[in-house]
Amino acid sequence: MDPETQLSELKWIINKYSDLVSVYGLLHWDLETVMPAGGSAGRGHQIATITHIAHETLASDQVGHLLEQLQPYAGQLDPDSDDARFIQVIDRLYRKKSRVPANLMAEIAKAASDAHHVWVQARETADFGRFEATLENILSLKRQYAEHFQPYDHIYDPLLDDYEPGLLTADVQAIFSTLRPHQVELLRAISDRQQVDDSFLHQHYDEKDQWKFGVEVITAYGFDWNHGRQDKSAHPFTQDINLGDVRITTRVLEDYLPSAFFSTAHESGHGIYCQGIDPSLDRTPLSRGASLGIHESQSRMYENVIGRSRSFWSHYYPRLQKIFPTQLGNVSLDAFYKAINKVEPSLIRVEADEATYNMHIMLRLELEIALVEGSLQVKDLPEAWNAHMQEYLGLTPPDDALGVLQDVHWSHGNFGYFSTYALGNLISAQLWERMLEDIPEAGAQIEVGDFKAITAWMREKVHRHGAKYKPQELVQRITGSKIDQEPYLRYLTNKYTEIYQF
Amino acid sequence: MDPETQLSELKWIINKYSDLVSVYGLLHWDLETVMPAGGSAGRGHQIATITHIAHETLASDQVGHLLEQLQPYAGQLDPDSDDARFIQVIDRLYRKKSRVPANLMAEIAKAASDAHHVWVQARETADFGRFEATLENILSLKRQYAEHFQPYDHIYDPLLDDYEPGLLTADVQAIFSTLRPHQVELLRAISDRQQVDDSFLHQHYDEKDQWKFGVEVITAYGFDWNHGRQDKSAHPFTQDINLGDVRITTRVLEDYLPSAFFSTAHESGHGIYCQGIDPSLDRTPLSRGASLGIHESQSRMYENVIGRSRSFWSHYYPRLQKIFPTQLGNVSLDAFYKAINKVEPSLIRVEADEATYNMHIMLRLELEIALVEGSLQVKDLPEAWNAHMQEYLGLTPPDDALGVLQDVHWSHGNFGYFSTYALGNLISAQLWERMLEDIPEAGAQIEVGDFKAITAWMREKVHRHGAKYKPQELVQRITGSKIDQEPYLRYLTNKYTEIYQF
Repeated sequence: MDPETQLSELKWIINKYSDLVSVYGLLHWDLETVMPAGGSAGRGHQIATITHIAHETLASDQVGHLLEQLQPYAGQLDPDSDDARFIQVIDRLYRKKSRVPANLMAEIAKAASDAHHVWVQARETADFGRFEATLENILSLKRQYAEHFQPYDHIYDPLLDDYEPGLLTADVQAIFSTLRPHQVELLRAISDRQQVDDSFLHQHYDEKDQWKFGVEVITAYGFDWNHGRQDKSAHPFTQDINLGDVRITTRVLEDYLPSAFFSTAHESGHGIYCQGIDPSLDRTPLSRGASLGIHESQSRMYENVIGRSRSFWSHYYPRLQKIFPTQLGNVSLDAFYKAINKVEPSLIRVEADEATYNMHIMLRLELEIALVEGSLQVKDLPEAWNAHMQEYLGLTPPDDALGVLQDVHWSHGNFGYFSTYALGNLISAQLWERMLEDIPEAGAQIEVGDFKAITAWMREKVHRHGAKYKPQELVQRITGSKIDQEPYLRYLTNKYTEIYQF
Repeated sequence: MDPETQLSELKWIINKYSDLVSVYGLLHWDLETVMPAGGSAGRGHQIATITHIAHETLASDQVGHLLEQLQPYAGQLDPDSDDARFIQVIDRLYRKKSRVPANLMAEIAKAASDAHHVWVQARETADFGRFEATLENILSLKRQYAEHFQPYDHIYDPLLDDYEPGLLTADVQAIFSTLRPHQVELLRAISDRQQVDDSFLHQHYDEKDQWKFGVEVITAYGFDWNHGRQDKSAHPFTQDINLGDVRITTRVLEDYLPSAFFSTAHESGHGIYCQGIDPSLDRTPLSRGASLGIHESQSRMYENVIGRSRSFWSHYYPRLQKIFPTQLGNVSLDAFYKAINKVEPSLIRVEADEATYNMHIMLRLELEIALVEGSLQVKDLPEAWNAHMQEYLGLTPPDDALGVLQDVHWSHGNFGYFSTYALGNLISAQLWERMLEDIPEAGAQIEVGDFKAITAWMREKVHRHGAKYKPQELVQRITGSKIDQEPYLRYLTNKYTEIYQF
């Protein structure tokens, strides 16, 4: 076989694999949005079957053989060409998948599936003890998983690499150790100032009206309804079935206005990213985002950098006041802007504001690295959690439900996931600064509700490439430097010195 | 390997196969209800991939080998046991699937997929000539398909068998040749009488109110919302994802009351059937209905035998009048009952009443048998269609769109499908007569809106068995005779002599 034939054979298999990933996505979306309760046992089987077949398809000897044969050919291609990147990405995926025995993968999947229920119960009763043995088991399995990737600099590297390809533990530690003291300092400065009033956000806001307003904004952002839809779910998420079918969800609280709007804006960022990936990458793993961190950079940008900016609300606030005249008619733009940007250390990550959010992440990252490398025992985790909370945010959780048991991630075995949230914040500010060099009038455009140039810039620089480049490489190509905390610190400082006047 | 191990290995493969069938069902449901337009290209690929893997899974050498080894063991089992029936059903499926070359199956799937578009255009322009070559191609492929099942009594047998396992062309011809003259005679008698007035059905009826009324009725029928849901789609259908997740759809016309209600009642019959299948058959092909005809017997029963009965409306009409006081306040129960049972020969099958419906089916059956056996040429089809319409219903279509081009089935290559609609009508009346022997008070129960005993009887006799028995065998077990036209003729005659007083 000549290399072209080998490549088209590899693509044929990978297209099939990608179809299965799409199907998995639909099974998951359906489960979270519309599936009747009675479907859950069956859905578990369907997901297991598709996962199993997808694994077999990708980690097959045939794929390994084709990849081996294609290496010399790949070496002759333009390294930035779709084909060269395709071979590189598939090779990486294949090596990851085929390195770990299928039965360990199955054991992890099973343990995570069983653990969910235990975690839910432990959280409901605020009793970490009920979850301890289960977490120990998952941690031990994930350690075994990581050990299959020896040699490595750090045992946490292979876990992080599942979410941020190419990023090392040392990289994120370096970033966060620079970031932390500055964020602590910022919080201290804010806490000395008079707190803003956000009581008017806690009134009755009609669900339908909230929904319509969100739709209006994300349509202006560039979310394409011919290639997507929005539904309700308990926890907001984005599911890209394929490039032409990108689904976002939100939840609406009728007694707290920000919840639905900002989760809609957040998920629309994920959705616009997916919709903007080059169609030539469809039906390959390159048609997904570059990493969770890059994905989060887009969602946090549309949610926060744009959606919580004064420019944005100078355009949209009169519109919002028209929809909710009783609730907001007497609230000034300035008061509203400050309220949606109120900073207040709190116990729960998902409710955290922009200034405290990264603190929650850094705490988790330190603890999970310590767990994985064995310097922290599972039994000592609640105490370590509470000590970190006190140190970072000045709070002590009254119980484990509001502390160490709050997140679902560890019960799913997702060690390595948390840092992507904070990285997304950093990258969003980096991209934004770079974008402003090309579009200095972006702020003025936002003030008239025009996001076309901004979204087009993101599409050109970020979205269309899909997963062709690893996250560090992509950020470097666009901004000229690697992932860097400075732009985000500048962004936070500028924003909050103005709001809290220090 | 001992037979028990072989059997559990076979079940493991078949469970996987059934999961893929469930996934296919979800892909189809999603496509028809919620998928954004941009998803269609990707969805085609996903469906093709799942179909391909499902075929490979079932028609594998491993399955063939296990089945062969299991034959002596199966011979020793109670022939009605789940395991004996499981082996029998899988053996039948395997033989059907493995007998036809995979590339012919792919060619048929491709031809049908391409044909859909051509058929839509031909129908839009009412020009059969545009569809002729395409239909010839599909017909030729389906003939090739059938020929792989030689020897047979009739080349149409293998096609019919895909929808009605075990039923022969000669069987349906015998049934329909007895049925036809009686139905013609009944129509003649009705046409001599004064026509009933149904003008009040063509008023504005609010969509939400229609929807709520339908939900109220099918909940009383026994449709289980924990194991199902209802959505809107262009064409109503039922999709059983698995036994715990059975989805029905309907369409609502605001200017014609019967459409939504009777399609809801119809699909609920399919849905209640699926929900009533024994959970021990889940994740096997036995967890689907026995055949399309048996399925249709349940949908037509809840739609017509119950849903268009005087007993039913004596309970529900006051309720409906309360919902639509302006439209129905001055219409008597008798006038309403007659209106929803109005008989009028018409050109379009899907709009036909109970007395004319089977005529539409018999016409199609005769024509498609003639096409498949080669006694009718595709080019002569429109003329033959119009001649039959004139003979059976006294009407001549003004163009091919309202005639030979009205149904999608042939463009999909679904030769053999149509008769199942008429068989369903016949079986519904057979089961009903038998049920009345056990529950003589069924009519009185319907008059108070109580369907529990009726649905429980159907569950016990029909639903729970799934596809354990072939349709003829199932009907014989329940009623003591094979599929028979007499009960249905009695049902029609009783009903219409009362309405049209002849």
